[in-house]
Amino acid sequence: MDGFKEQILKFENHLELLAKNFLPTSSSLQVISDSIKYSLFSGGKRFRPLLCFATAELFELDPEKTIPLATAIEFIHTYSLIHDDLPCMDDDDLRRGKPSNHKKFGEDIALLAGDALISEAQKILVQAYSGEQNFKDLFVEFSDSIGVQGMIAGQVLDLRLTDTNFDEMKEIHFLKTGQLIKLAIKGVGYLVGIDSEKLNSLNDLSLNLGFAFQIKDDLQDFMAGDESDSEANMVNVIGLEKTQHLIQSLSKDIKTTLQTFSGDPSSLQALIDYNLNREN
Amino acid sequence: MDGFKEQILKFENHLELLAKNFLPTSSSLQVISDSIKYSLFSGGKRFRPLLCFATAELFELDPEKTIPLATAIEFIHTYSLIHDDLPCMDDDDLRRGKPSNHKKFGEDIALLAGDALISEAQKILVQAYSGEQNFKDLFVEFSDSIGVQGMIAGQVLDLRLTDTNFDEMKEIHFLKTGQLIKLAIKGVGYLVGIDSEKLNSLNDLSLNLGFAFQIKDDLQDFMAGDESDSEANMVNVIGLEKTQHLIQSLSKDIKTTLQTFSGDPSSLQALIDYNLNREN
Repeated sequence: MDGFKEQILKFENHLELLAKNFLPTSSSLQVISDSIKYSLFSGGKRFRPLLCFATAELFELDPEKTIPLATAIEFIHTYSLIHDDLPCMDDDDLRRGKPSNHKKFGEDIALLAGDALISEAQKILVQAYSGEQNFKDLFVEFSDSIGVQGMIAGQVLDLRLTDTNFDEMKEIHFLKTGQLIKLAIKGVGYLVGIDSEKLNSLNDLSLNLGFAFQIKDDLQDFMAGDESDSEANMVNVIGLEKTQHLIQSLSKDIKTTLQTFSGDPSSLQALIDYNLNREN
Repeated sequence: MDGFKEQILKFENHLELLAKNFLPTSSSLQVISDSIKYSLFSGGKRFRPLLCFATAELFELDPEKTIPLATAIEFIHTYSLIHDDLPCMDDDDLRRGKPSNHKKFGEDIALLAGDALISEAQKILVQAYSGEQNFKDLFVEFSDSIGVQGMIAGQVLDLRLTDTNFDEMKEIHFLKTGQLIKLAIKGVGYLVGIDSEKLNSLNDLSLNLGFAFQIKDDLQDFMAGDESDSEANMVNVIGLEKTQHLIQSLSKDIKTTLQTFSGDPSSLQALIDYNLNREN
């Protein structure tokens, strides 16, 4: 992760500037600005932005070019956490060790903060990339991935989960977690303008990485004794050993696929290893 | 309204086809598809789409060209009603005489249905108009109007309203109701490619029409004895007579401004009269 310190610093600066520009400053609207900033700058790992920068490196693209994509993805990630934590969803009082957005600002403001982040994310994409050749494809894929056949479908399946099996869990993880990880990697592919075969290859490897990322989360939750979403925890479906093995084998497969690209995959490989070994 | 019967029929057919295409059909996701369809086809007046078609007539643009814009606006209107009705917002059990979305499908599904409509609306705009000369301006104005400085700002002000005065109420109405009415009219201006002076003129007249539309709603609520949002009802701020006079005078001003355009304003005038005289 150290290799991206400078890039992440640039990203954080960009986010802060952006927040200053798009958030209202009048006192009567301070609460919604504070609510959005609270969740945007809450110490997240910025794993998806890091994936954008590492994928840019693979294709020898200036990582700066991917900052708007990384920002839009982080906005959607943030909105999904705010809405997921609401009482009518997972009803979580804490997020990253701090009160969740609605605990701090009220459910109404949290709801609106999430809503605002969705449309702002898509605006960022248009402002940055509407002149690009693959803009329409990128935008439609982005919208579909976060929409009712993507992330939201994953939420619905998760909410209505009754008896769990491996295939169903995999589908939920592909939809809920995989879509944004996919956008972070495949989205850069659109910006570079790679052919459809390579896009498909990025599609598959990034969905698998999203899957590996989510079951690593499941593993961490299991180890920490966190039972909050135990029904949808892969460890409870296939057991501890098989889950550990699955993360290993997914990571190995992704690394192998990365070798088929001509560029330097070392940063992406480092992020895959980071996921394998992370303790949070 | 009769002059647009054919156009509205086309619009409804378009919406139904679109819903078939973008909504999932698998049994496990039926609930979210049903939830979205329930609110999209709930007997709304389609006032904003009608404004698009009438504005197209003013500029001699084929109204078909405005159907995606009208659809995107109707999606945002629908999302805003679903989220507004949630218990943490206005807590309304009924909408248009039927159970509100969350009463029928649960709060979690209603929340997700609203979320899905936001990103889908913006996708529709990109799919239809990304090749247009003014696409970026149209898209950014659309996003800003529904965002944290637009509709959402109006919601926040309304939620946190303490003592009401005319100016504050006007600001809320401009933000909450005015933005989508503005997009329906000014959005067509972008598609036609009129100059910035004319865009500004459309901007002002459409915000005033949104204001007139909202205080007509206030008047109807007052007459019906509906006290559900009485604090934010203009009749309770300036009185019955002044409210009636204000609607009349706003309508007259808008009609006068419409005369400055060279095209045929009769359909837009008919919609202004419809608002003046409507009983629901």
